Amino acid sequence: MGDLHGDQLGLLDDCAAIDYKDEFLLMTTDMITQSSHLPPGSPFWNIGWHLVAVNLSDIAAMGGEPLGLVIALGLPDSYDSEMVEELLQGAHACASRFDTFILGGDTKEDATLTLSACALGRVSKSEIMRRKGANSGDFVYVTGCLGKAASAFYSLKKNPDDMDSMENLLHVEPRIAEGRALAQSGLVTSCMDISDGLASSLFQLGEINDVGFEIDLFRVPKCDSVESISGSMNMHYEEFVLYFGGDYELLVTAKDKGARELERVMSQQDIRFSQIGRVVESRRNTLIKDGMSTSLENRGYEHFRWNK
Amino acid sequence: MGDLHGDQLGLLDDCAAIDYKDEFLLMTTDMITQSSHLPPGSPFWNIGWHLVAVNLSDIAAMGGEPLGLVIALGLPDSYDSEMVEELLQGAHACASRFDTFILGGDTKEDATLTLSACALGRVSKSEIMRRKGANSGDFVYVTGCLGKAASAFYSLKKNPDDMDSMENLLHVEPRIAEGRALAQSGLVTSCMDISDGLASSLFQLGEINDVGFEIDLFRVPKCDSVESISGSMNMHYEEFVLYFGGDYELLVTAKDKGARELERVMSQQDIRFSQIGRVVESRRNTLIKDGMSTSLENRGYEHFRWNK
Repeated sequence: MGDLHGDQLGLLDDCAAIDYKDEFLLMTTDMITQSSHLPPGSPFWNIGWHLVAVNLSDIAAMGGEPLGLVIALGLPDSYDSEMVEELLQGAHACASRFDTFILGGDTKEDATLTLSACALGRVSKSEIMRRKGANSGDFVYVTGCLGKAASAFYSLKKNPDDMDSMENLLHVEPRIAEGRALAQSGLVTSCMDISDGLASSLFQLGEINDVGFEIDLFRVPKCDSVESISGSMNMHYEEFVLYFGGDYELLVTAKDKGARELERVMSQQDIRFSQIGRVVESRRNTLIKDGMSTSLENRGYEHFRWNK
Repeated sequence: MGDLHGDQLGLLDDCAAIDYKDEFLLMTTDMITQSSHLPPGSPFWNIGWHLVAVNLSDIAAMGGEPLGLVIALGLPDSYDSEMVEELLQGAHACASRFDTFILGGDTKEDATLTLSACALGRVSKSEIMRRKGANSGDFVYVTGCLGKAASAFYSLKKNPDDMDSMENLLHVEPRIAEGRALAQSGLVTSCMDISDGLASSLFQLGEINDVGFEIDLFRVPKCDSVESISGSMNMHYEEFVLYFGGDYELLVTAKDKGARELERVMSQQDIRFSQIGRVVESRRNTLIKDGMSTSLENRGYEHFRWNK
């Protein structure tokens, strides 16, 4: 959460949780700026989808059900109402896909495109998933596959007009249903979304829980395009699946006792859910790779920085 | 709500109202951009206060009690953590003054300063105040006094280093207690905050309710500095109290039957509350000025546009 001065505003969890009657209200905000996030020429519809999706992802990470979003658009003078309409259509499409609504917002003139959204959600007190709770011995899981955003990013670097890659990069699927299934299982000890890459998220989770991780690279689920595109760039695919952000899958820990049951629940709901390692007592994060134990590095590709 | 394309995102009310158990949750967002809102050299503490205050003002306008805010900061590279710390201190001070909290947020790098906040509030279903509800014959009221922001703005134009005026311009007091008192009275037919000036707000309220207004200029409460500063600028003071934004007082209508009782309730709570005119059936907005009936113009000073 946040490039600059993140610690000054940081939340321990993906959302603020407000104690409200028998539930928690979940509230989160994410800002998207032209310079940090958007490849030049990004279609407005996809920008709108992305804005809503990254905010809903924080609700998903805590097991929440979305109640609605408001959005604030800082728009350069040169933007006409058709561009804004497309952006809003993408935003509405994403909200609607996840059974929620854009409730309103604000538009202001700004020097460069700056978009901000705020998502509200709810979760019952017994179901909320937090970042704190992982213990040594727990199994570590991720939903879906990793490396999709990295593949899109590097494809775009090669061919800046590749619209498919641009759309893939911006197309985040917030894991709302997955988050709800995990929360309802009652078997999760901690959860967060992987916005800045798996390695970076594991370091954050380790710090909060005063634990380390032993991750088996072979078990980390790669998205389809990862091997071919990383190969064509002469890069090891681990750069794509460990050290690159933008995938927004859920990183989950669960007690070893409940692990089989959790895997069964997720499989019943047709959710791709991969065990990738264990929580360990030592704060050191290790990567098992080709049978060898190496150090997992604490780095991630924090936003795409097209203009740097 | 919003300069550009406001209709595409506009809300009918100051906040979105989410039907939630026996209450409404209120959710609003307001964005502040360097070019539209902030005089050059604005102190960071005051910017932070302002950001929170304008969002809480929307909660106040619906009679709500704030539950918390999240804020998103788009910050230029040149900003150091001390500036951000001051900004956050101002934001926390405003939240705390109104018994609420900054729950967290997001920071991103941006070309120019762009700040966005989202406020969450709640109000019981029986107490919520909306913009729709005014009827011809109702009395029209405002809280507090008008023209403070205009006075500060024109003083600053004369003397750009006048820190008192800069602070006055940014120092908005969201009318939370006033909004709660109005809501609890059960005597209000419509309410909104006057962000863009009294005339502009009356036109919005007239459009929503298909009514007009007859406003007595003599009854419009002027803040202390208005006459001297408008005089020194060779401007009529009505420019300051009718056609200039930034005061964030509440504009209220109430049935004539309950008007005396409402005035008594507000007076008991030491709230300055002035009757300024009546709601009329015709869509025409008139201004009674020196005993003559003239036309109230549909214009406001929408944001300050320092860089234009």
